[in-house]
Amino acid sequence: MVKSLAVERAGSSAIRDLLEITEQPEIVSLAGGLPNPATLPTDAIARAAAAALEDDPLGALQYGPTEGYRPLRRWVAGRHGLAADPHGEEHVLVTSGSQQALELLTRALVDPGGLVALADPAYVGALQALRAAGVDLAAIPADGDGLCVDALADRLATGERPALVYVVANFDNPSGSTLSAERRVALAALADRYGFWIVDDDPYGDLRWHGEAPVPLRELTDRTITLGSASKVLAPGLRVGWAVAPVEVRRAMTTLKQSADLHTSALTQQIVHRTLAEPGFLEGHLVTLRTTYQAQAEHLVGALRTKLGDRMTVPEPDGGMFVWAELLDTTADSAQLLDPAVAAGVAFVPGAAFGVERLHPTRMRLSYATADAASLDLAVDRLAGVIPAP
Amino acid sequence: MVKSLAVERAGSSAIRDLLEITEQPEIVSLAGGLPNPATLPTDAIARAAAAALEDDPLGALQYGPTEGYRPLRRWVAGRHGLAADPHGEEHVLVTSGSQQALELLTRALVDPGGLVALADPAYVGALQALRAAGVDLAAIPADGDGLCVDALADRLATGERPALVYVVANFDNPSGSTLSAERRVALAALADRYGFWIVDDDPYGDLRWHGEAPVPLRELTDRTITLGSASKVLAPGLRVGWAVAPVEVRRAMTTLKQSADLHTSALTQQIVHRTLAEPGFLEGHLVTLRTTYQAQAEHLVGALRTKLGDRMTVPEPDGGMFVWAELLDTTADSAQLLDPAVAAGVAFVPGAAFGVERLHPTRMRLSYATADAASLDLAVDRLAGVIPAP
Repeated sequence: MVKSLAVERAGSSAIRDLLEITEQPEIVSLAGGLPNPATLPTDAIARAAAAALEDDPLGALQYGPTEGYRPLRRWVAGRHGLAADPHGEEHVLVTSGSQQALELLTRALVDPGGLVALADPAYVGALQALRAAGVDLAAIPADGDGLCVDALADRLATGERPALVYVVANFDNPSGSTLSAERRVALAALADRYGFWIVDDDPYGDLRWHGEAPVPLRELTDRTITLGSASKVLAPGLRVGWAVAPVEVRRAMTTLKQSADLHTSALTQQIVHRTLAEPGFLEGHLVTLRTTYQAQAEHLVGALRTKLGDRMTVPEPDGGMFVWAELLDTTADSAQLLDPAVAAGVAFVPGAAFGVERLHPTRMRLSYATADAASLDLAVDRLAGVIPAP
Repeated sequence: MVKSLAVERAGSSAIRDLLEITEQPEIVSLAGGLPNPATLPTDAIARAAAAALEDDPLGALQYGPTEGYRPLRRWVAGRHGLAADPHGEEHVLVTSGSQQALELLTRALVDPGGLVALADPAYVGALQALRAAGVDLAAIPADGDGLCVDALADRLATGERPALVYVVANFDNPSGSTLSAERRVALAALADRYGFWIVDDDPYGDLRWHGEAPVPLRELTDRTITLGSASKVLAPGLRVGWAVAPVEVRRAMTTLKQSADLHTSALTQQIVHRTLAEPGFLEGHLVTLRTTYQAQAEHLVGALRTKLGDRMTVPEPDGGMFVWAELLDTTADSAQLLDPAVAAGVAFVPGAAFGVERLHPTRMRLSYATADAASLDLAVDRLAGVIPAP
């Protein structure tokens, strides 16, 4: 009686169990996508909370509109090329993290049994939300330039009709890849031709420390829904994210959000707006984040190449939070390495967790975001003791 | 392409539009269930926010467990008769308002096309969540003692098998009625016999200023899921609620919550825990709330009986936030009175908004929670100018 289809579809809680295990202080976790605690701007958040409750207690504590706090919606619109549009905020829905945005838009745009295309491997949280919604998944291959849009085009040519194509175009989770400019143009053209929606889940785009960002998908086609979040640039515990979408899509999502949770916390929306919109704050904070993550990424990649270079290949990230390492032993199974790794005091996420159709047994996602350099060294030493030498 | 079945089912946004209209300052709104702004404990919340960010910034700002902040879960368990259970918090899921709890448990326990029984009239937010989930609704009559459990028993005897029976057993929204002790016993016995779950949505139980509360349903059968909220006893803008449920149900809801929004804001959970668990705070604040709402209820009922006693009957509430007034003109349609009422500067919610199968045209829900005495007088004067004399 207890488990409905929705619960069954949402699947196991293996990742949640893993993240709980890695909360043990003796384990160095490369598993989660948690910001480095030292980067959390606690003082700015405390000032914003105090100011919101002092200046606008009713706005922070009373029921608010389902669409979100209007100044935050305006700020988000401005960051997404809508600054000149007097009704730009009509494109914006504030959500309880971008996870909720994905869940709402899936339910708003895809009926159960409908089709969603996405890269294989794909973000675990997206897989959970999509599977819980009862949609079918079309797994598209991906490489260092992101989703293989040619392969998607072939599937479309055979008559497959996804309602959505989901991408993390900037610093993909788990693969770290960025969708190339050429593929963005091609993907946008396919969206216009076949009438599907592109969901560009973009929590990491601001965390680029090297190279130029390709043109955003939203500038290439109106059939783009961009998801953003305060989790990686401010603090995940606030649970504030957003969707920027065509107004008709935003309205459909709003209807579902009203029955899902009425609205996102008015207080945390005010905190996010007061910090992110404070002149100079975000630019300065992004410099801190990029510098921190670049240093940690270079440290992790360097240590992995030094101590495990004979056993894995490790790409050099230009941004984001993840390295998608590949074991050179083609018979390896990273899922079977996890228990010994945790026993040795280090955690990662095995490739299988991100599998849509394939298991990615030679892959492991390693996050350099959370741990400092000394902890990263310790983690690599422990990994080296667990991954068999060639 | 934009509107899925889920959006269609979730229905129109008439109530949201109404609540937006009533934000205009020249309108006295008896429409929403918003706490009187004067009762919001802004200082206590500001102190709690500052303390959380000072004492436990990581706990307030980093990702947290999907189940919720453990000290808050323990506190909720203690308020629900589980203080002596060393694992009492395992029964508790913290949610983004009790609205989310209802949505999650519906998806966890009822597949699309399954049956949910509830009183007609019923809470609008419940109707939206249930309809969005695609479940069928069995409308059960209700009277001044709440859901007519005999009528439910008759339906069960004919072979109908609801997966859930939804009640607001204390100070129902919209009817204001409290489910009698006898009916609680009978409902619990039916749950045990037929194996359905009782959802006892209880945001108003603490707002009782007269009489004794009947025994809680959770003490009568283990097949009870109790929903609670900080919205009415603290502040709705925090969006913190909870479900207290058998562990297997709590686990199924947790799986769906993970894909819905990962977890509820860690900061607002800490604020709610630090205020509600502070010795003496809640007891004192509930005295303030009960005194305020009792005075406002008596003021509204008195004014309605004085100025509209020839046109409506008005029950005297013992708690909660709502009066479910009945127009004496049996041909009246409260939905048609709304536009002239808003034009005259007063808003209410017409009975039709709460209809499951019936339209309740002679009914109107009037909230005395938000407005002070002078505004309530103004509202009644304006209503008297709109409701036709006999």
